[in-house]
Amino acid sequence: MSDSMEDQQICGHKVDDFFRKIKQFHNWAAPGLVLGGFMVDWALELIGPGVEADAVVESRHCLPDAVQIFTPCTVGNGWLKVLDWDKFALSLYDRHDRNGFRVWLDLEKAAAFPNLYNWYMRKVPKKSLPLEVLNKTILEAGKRPLSMHSIRMKDLYQRDKKGDIAVCPDCREAYPVRQGNVCRSCAGHAYYQYSERHGNENG
Amino acid sequence: MSDSMEDQQICGHKVDDFFRKIKQFHNWAAPGLVLGGFMVDWALELIGPGVEADAVVESRHCLPDAVQIFTPCTVGNGWLKVLDWDKFALSLYDRHDRNGFRVWLDLEKAAAFPNLYNWYMRKVPKKSLPLEVLNKTILEAGKRPLSMHSIRMKDLYQRDKKGDIAVCPDCREAYPVRQGNVCRSCAGHAYYQYSERHGNENG
Repeated sequence: MSDSMEDQQICGHKVDDFFRKIKQFHNWAAPGLVLGGFMVDWALELIGPGVEADAVVESRHCLPDAVQIFTPCTVGNGWLKVLDWDKFALSLYDRHDRNGFRVWLDLEKAAAFPNLYNWYMRKVPKKSLPLEVLNKTILEAGKRPLSMHSIRMKDLYQRDKKGDIAVCPDCREAYPVRQGNVCRSCAGHAYYQYSERHGNENG
Repeated sequence: MSDSMEDQQICGHKVDDFFRKIKQFHNWAAPGLVLGGFMVDWALELIGPGVEADAVVESRHCLPDAVQIFTPCTVGNGWLKVLDWDKFALSLYDRHDRNGFRVWLDLEKAAAFPNLYNWYMRKVPKKSLPLEVLNKTILEAGKRPLSMHSIRMKDLYQRDKKGDIAVCPDCREAYPVRQGNVCRSCAGHAYYQYSERHGNENG
């Protein structure tokens, strides 16, 4: 690692601390999170300090965690919205005026970094590109494989309005009235079945 | 706060540390996260140590963060799935045998804690129930307003398989082939429009 990389700061963290935070939350140093860290870093820089920014990520993979680790936006606080588009892009925008920046992996630029490009486009089997080698490439590349554009939000900037809730007549749990006469689960969408092992015990 | 509450441990943390972790990630001590912490605590206890557990939450509000703070499961690493059902329930399950536990807010039990019940069912305006009072009720109630049942996963246990990717002919970004000839954004679903302020600068 060169001297300049040791001095490198990503999202306000030195490289070691950047990796430590990623591993702590995401459980391993996923390359998508290292690259995502640079995307968040750039978006934060573009939007500037003192702006209350909300976020959108365009993939469920890795990028939600890059935003959740390095900004105040989380899925549960509603400041981060996650699109299942499988595109490597994210946006931060001022929640008051809806202006912001979109940052994305630019394949033309990424082609200058073969490890990165081949990993992302799945042109090499995982085994032939060790994690450390790939992450070193991403770290050295920094923002160079990325592009950005200023944006104005057309959609998704709305804060969730919670509607009326009711008690589901089947399961007796609370659910949103707008979903119909019973909750999603009792309407046949349950992802689980109750098993005989345990149940109805008191908390 | 009683002596026993000071000794209380939630998800392996003393009360002060539990609140500190919630505020650090979620930015404020949302009551849904305090209650969610007890749900995660119980689910972890039920599933037992040494089990590699994945998670499902049945609401986008608060619960995703309770799981992300207090378990290794995150949205970005794919171990947590988020359903937009607006039900206050979560499940942890063994990713190998698909058996687990669902824990939920049981309204009949919750009725014994009027602050909690009235808050959740939106029967009182926010202003008339200060956050500290509500959180104290939730802390004192602990697991008592909750119920649980053992489950077997019928769905959502699958790990995402990434399919083939291609370059979108319109925006030149990578996208999943299964979505069609162009990416979701170029198919008319973009949440943003590019503005004139900035763009096409190098990283």
